[in-house]
Amino acid sequence: MSTFGSHFRVTSAGESHDKSVSCIVDNCPPGLALTEADIQPQLDRRRPGQSAITTPRDEKDLVTIHSGTEFGRTYDNPYTIDLYPRASHADWTYLEKYGIKASSGGGRSSAREAIARVAAGAIAEKWLRETYGVEIVAFVSSVGNIKLFGDADAMSAGPKFQQLATTLTRPQVDEFLPVRCPDKDATVLMEKRIAAHDSTGGTVTCVVRNAPPGLGEPTFDKLEALLGHAMMSIPAVKGFEVGSDFRGSEMTGSQHNDPFIVPAADGASPATPGGRHLQRHAHVAFKPPATISQNQTTALYDASGAGILAAKGRHDPCVVPRVVPIVEGMAALAIADAVMAQHARLVGRQMAAHPAN
Amino acid sequence: MSTFGSHFRVTSAGESHDKSVSCIVDNCPPGLALTEADIQPQLDRRRPGQSAITTPRDEKDLVTIHSGTEFGRTYDNPYTIDLYPRASHADWTYLEKYGIKASSGGGRSSAREAIARVAAGAIAEKWLRETYGVEIVAFVSSVGNIKLFGDADAMSAGPKFQQLATTLTRPQVDEFLPVRCPDKDATVLMEKRIAAHDSTGGTVTCVVRNAPPGLGEPTFDKLEALLGHAMMSIPAVKGFEVGSDFRGSEMTGSQHNDPFIVPAADGASPATPGGRHLQRHAHVAFKPPATISQNQTTALYDASGAGILAAKGRHDPCVVPRVVPIVEGMAALAIADAVMAQHARLVGRQMAAHPAN
Amino acid sequence: MSTFGSHFRVTSAGESHDKSVSCIVDNCPPGLALTEADIQPQLDRRRPGQSAITTPRDEKDLVTIHSGTEFGRTYDNPYTIDLYPRASHADWTYLEKYGIKASSGGGRSSAREAIARVAAGAIAEKWLRETYGVEIVAFVSSVGNIKLFGDADAMSAGPKFQQLATTLTRPQVDEFLPVRCPDKDATVLMEKRIAAHDSTGGTVTCVVRNAPPGLGEPTFDKLEALLGHAMMSIPAVKGFEVGSDFRGSEMTGSQHNDPFIVPAADGASPATPGGRHLQRHAHVAFKPPATISQNQTTALYDASGAGILAAKGRHDPCVVPRVVPIVEGMAALAIADAVMAQHARLVGRQMAAHPAN
Amino acid sequence: MSTFGSHFRVTSAGESHDKSVSCIVDNCPPGLALTEADIQPQLDRRRPGQSAITTPRDEKDLVTIHSGTEFGRTYDNPYTIDLYPRASHADWTYLEKYGIKASSGGGRSSAREAIARVAAGAIAEKWLRETYGVEIVAFVSSVGNIKLFGDADAMSAGPKFQQLATTLTRPQVDEFLPVRCPDKDATVLMEKRIAAHDSTGGTVTCVVRNAPPGLGEPTFDKLEALLGHAMMSIPAVKGFEVGSDFRGSEMTGSQHNDPFIVPAADGASPATPGGRHLQRHAHVAFKPPATISQNQTTALYDASGAGILAAKGRHDPCVVPRVVPIVEGMAALAIADAVMAQHARLVGRQMAAHPAN
Repeated sequence: MSTFGSHFRVTSAGESHDKSVSCIVDNCPPGLALTEADIQPQLDRRRPGQSAITTPRDEKDLVTIHSGTEFGRTYDNPYTIDLYPRASHADWTYLEKYGIKASSGGGRSSAREAIARVAAGAIAEKWLRETYGVEIVAFVSSVGNIKLFGDADAMSAGPKFQQLATTLTRPQVDEFLPVRCPDKDATVLMEKRIAAHDSTGGTVTCVVRNAPPGLGEPTFDKLEALLGHAMMSIPAVKGFEVGSDFRGSEMTGSQHNDPFIVPAADGASPATPGGRHLQRHAHVAFKPPATISQNQTTALYDASGAGILAAKGRHDPCVVPRVVPIVEGMAALAIADAVMAQHARLVGRQMAAHPAN
Repeated sequence: MSTFGSHFRVTSAGESHDKSVSCIVDNCPPGLALTEADIQPQLDRRRPGQSAITTPRDEKDLVTIHSGTEFGRTYDNPYTIDLYPRASHADWTYLEKYGIKASSGGGRSSAREAIARVAAGAIAEKWLRETYGVEIVAFVSSVGNIKLFGDADAMSAGPKFQQLATTLTRPQVDEFLPVRCPDKDATVLMEKRIAAHDSTGGTVTCVVRNAPPGLGEPTFDKLEALLGHAMMSIPAVKGFEVGSDFRGSEMTGSQHNDPFIVPAADGASPATPGGRHLQRHAHVAFKPPATISQNQTTALYDASGAGILAAKGRHDPCVVPRVVPIVEGMAALAIADAVMAQHARLVGRQMAAHPAN
Repeated sequence: MSTFGSHFRVTSAGESHDKSVSCIVDNCPPGLALTEADIQPQLDRRRPGQSAITTPRDEKDLVTIHSGTEFGRTYDNPYTIDLYPRASHADWTYLEKYGIKASSGGGRSSAREAIARVAAGAIAEKWLRETYGVEIVAFVSSVGNIKLFGDADAMSAGPKFQQLATTLTRPQVDEFLPVRCPDKDATVLMEKRIAAHDSTGGTVTCVVRNAPPGLGEPTFDKLEALLGHAMMSIPAVKGFEVGSDFRGSEMTGSQHNDPFIVPAADGASPATPGGRHLQRHAHVAFKPPATISQNQTTALYDASGAGILAAKGRHDPCVVPRVVPIVEGMAALAIADAVMAQHARLVGRQMAAHPAN
Repeated sequence: MSTFGSHFRVTSAGESHDKSVSCIVDNCPPGLALTEADIQPQLDRRRPGQSAITTPRDEKDLVTIHSGTEFGRTYDNPYTIDLYPRASHADWTYLEKYGIKASSGGGRSSAREAIARVAAGAIAEKWLRETYGVEIVAFVSSVGNIKLFGDADAMSAGPKFQQLATTLTRPQVDEFLPVRCPDKDATVLMEKRIAAHDSTGGTVTCVVRNAPPGLGEPTFDKLEALLGHAMMSIPAVKGFEVGSDFRGSEMTGSQHNDPFIVPAADGASPATPGGRHLQRHAHVAFKPPATISQNQTTALYDASGAGILAAKGRHDPCVVPRVVPIVEGMAALAIADAVMAQHARLVGRQMAAHPAN
């Protein structure tokens, strides 16, 4: 279905060539200061046309909050937020003119549907940040076979990775545009890789800091399961791993149990002294865009100098730099939902007693 | 929550040291022939004590169907199946005697909770098999760094893997007990690996044949997302990948689009000539059991000859051989749910019209 | 939450003074011919200003389908329909000017939120009609203590009621505007009743014809329960009854079992010879609008001639004529959801087998 | 489906002639003291054979908690409670011997399925009582056309009703066994009415005291809608009303707004001074048991003196006295779910901040 989340719940509609993409964010905690300015920056980070290596489409993706706030704050009652990120004019004309058929690969599975994820995620994230100081930062950790810090192992362990996991901010990630990989050496190689006459896959790593301990349900809705569901639902994603990752499956218990600097992200784990469980990271694998094959006979892409690809079509040769805010958004949605689920159970202890008692 | 699935829906309860583990399977299609004999074999495959390398506990895990069938067939009305896999006597005594506290790592996240997954999955699977000829076969594809066919790439591509994906049966997998890896050479190495004084991680590969085309919802509930949710909810799972996997993120589009012998498992993809999309596979990564670290100072494990480990405690040094039926069960539950969701939408076309019309 | 339905699922947003009221209709069966013209007529029937006795507000409530259809037909893939019934200009200005605070009685519980119910219901209904020939017709059956056919018993039994239940159409109901009670004598009295300097409660009766037999789940989601949930969620509703109603609680079994011409609407009941179970009816009770009390000191309402009330404020003295399409819409949503749930279970029998088998 | 509730969630299974009826109570707040003794009393109140006028079956309905508690307290982690009210031996033999076919009227819709509602409701209620002092008391308010206090209006308004609504306890209700109508004069008439050679319908009134203010969601899940869903799902229920009830539809606004002693039960209403909104009541209408008609030719029932009916069969001539704990249970489940939903939204304000901040 088009709904994600049981408590912090987003329902989305619309796709590439519709009049608009919209989403309804239901059950967002009331009293949150919220205007379009809280949402637009993440939409801008997803927008094409940010650099030479991304598709030159001019999608404006301007967000409008149609209902659910008053005087810049969500209601102090149960309510629903209604957002409409608008399609650019060009898109709409395009539909009028050509009457494009929503194919199986396009339609609601198109990347543009992801605008709703970014917008709703920005709201969830603001609430998590204001309430718990949660920080969610994603970045590109590989493009093709070029890895962050030049090494698959270094991608999620080792002191360099630790420093990123502990301190990296979004502005710092954006200093590494157009690739958004926070490693200068890797970035140079990645740009070259993307510049080839071909599309390229890659991975995005997402770090979450300060999430409350104990999130996730014990059986089917562990936090890893919710995050896995969230990430695997992003178009083009083919793999998801957390904590010790696939690498962990190659280890022995004595190696694995050897104290990680970033401990295994176990949804059910209790708070540990020193707050070591408060950081989590996940890797998300994106396949290379398939579009190239559909147009291969017509030679869609050609290189134009080091690290720069002028795509004549409308498609990215490598999606990972632009999906960074989508990964952040889905992480925020999954975590906000888990926080609210956790809180629902704690009524007896922390909610004020009935005034009459 | 303790419920998985929106249509074919299982709710589970109970854990290691409770009187029983039980599950309620709701909304199973009516008219299915079903007795305990359809469920017990998969429970037996999960049971400890199957070989020298698994834990010698004698959990009998006998399944009883308490309600929902009549004369060996599910009702011809909407109904709920109620199963109670019984704990062995030993377990129950254990609770009486020691009053074990459900710790954060135990409790409902314990591996024994997985019995409910296996039992419910066996029902889903029988229905899928009888209705569409769906075949679901899982097997061990790596133990530590020892891979099926000796090579990470060969684990999901190449002619040897193709043959497995196309023809492998469960009895054939069980010929490779105790490891359940359908590769003699790898098996020898794996048994040695498991026999070391340590626990070991590994991966399980699951192949699905003859699933109806077009399963999965377009946005948040793509088939990959449902499968990801299902697998990441299994205790000790740290990674999940489908189709071109994490490997795919290292490819270019021209490589990736080069016709795979096993094509990318795209939930929304249409049926292709030759039925190539009818096979899907997924890899699931399990971390090494953590228990060893908790007992490390007391030297729990010692080796006893080639391929044999005599665990003095109650824990597996390597869970992957035993989780094979759990992975099969969760795959069956996710696919059955997607089939029913798909079917719900097709009313207008395929459901008989009202008799009065 | 703001979502109704598990299969045919509507999520709504927006309220009286927001930029728009919108809804996302998820999982509508594909291939349905659908344009704004299928939805607008029901919105027009709900609109104020239809007659002298309803509020003179000029809410245009023009529906726009923003996404989900192509060439006037819902996609042949899973998808979501996105509708935006627009607020009239006046409303929007109003918010700009006065910055009205959403109070507890207003906000999302305001009657205007019901636009989304009507719009989504119109889609559900069209699908039910085209697929099964389902007919849903609601009408006013009492205003204050004035009853259809002058008698509480005659409201749901007796030959006159039978004829209505069997044959009444919406155009016929609208011939009885402004009250929408299909009984001339009662209408005259009702108009007089409404014309008093006061608000008035009333009941709406909804008849459903040709619904497929066997709808509803056996335990918590019986059809009556789904309909009860749907109707009790409409603003101002205080009671709901089906089949033999509250009257039935006053009967003995031998009276009750005496063959009704319209049999008891039992969700789980099998098809009966002669199709007698194919008609169902429900009564929904609306309290008198509360607004009058909030303004009572300022003498909001004054009469202006026989059967005519010129309300100076913006509120209906009696909502039942206008809620008729809302009741129809909620009935359609509940029934469409139950039809899809029922169909999901029948996969094995009626869905074409996999082509490879 | 067989699940009720989104947060405090019960899933039930089993029916009249199964080995057991069971339910899984998921997401019950942790730390609640809970043993079988908290549940058994309500099961006993539902049990047949309590008096001469109810069916003489000897269903013992002994509850066993199979999992989810430790040392008499629900876990301090997310968990699931597993209950198995056992069928009496007689029932089980009966199935063995006669192999009764679950008919459409029986099966999961049979009254015995209601055991699960009572058991789960008892848990919800205990939690509500301990946390907020919530009191839920139901009683018989009419049998056939004989009403509490002899008057339909007096059933939910007037000083006598007010006193009941404010002070009535369960032990007091049980003093009026076998009818459970807290009015001596009405009881005498009701016993006679029930003693006739026929089955009889009736109504149950449920009063809720001290529920936290503001429960219910603004659109589709208003508290009235949740309660309506809950009550309409009980077998044999044909009508539901709250607050001003169907009677309210006969009033004018000035009458209706005239301060009720028991104010309208509005889910979205804010707390009012004096706590007047803290009481709510609902009426639930039960049709006369249909079974009589199915056996009418065999003259099942015969009278045996004033107020006493010796039923030869296994069926109640009037269910309302025994459904009192079922109505209480469903009210508790709906309210507990709404309380948890409400609490989930309040995270930012009342949950302790993350220790690191």
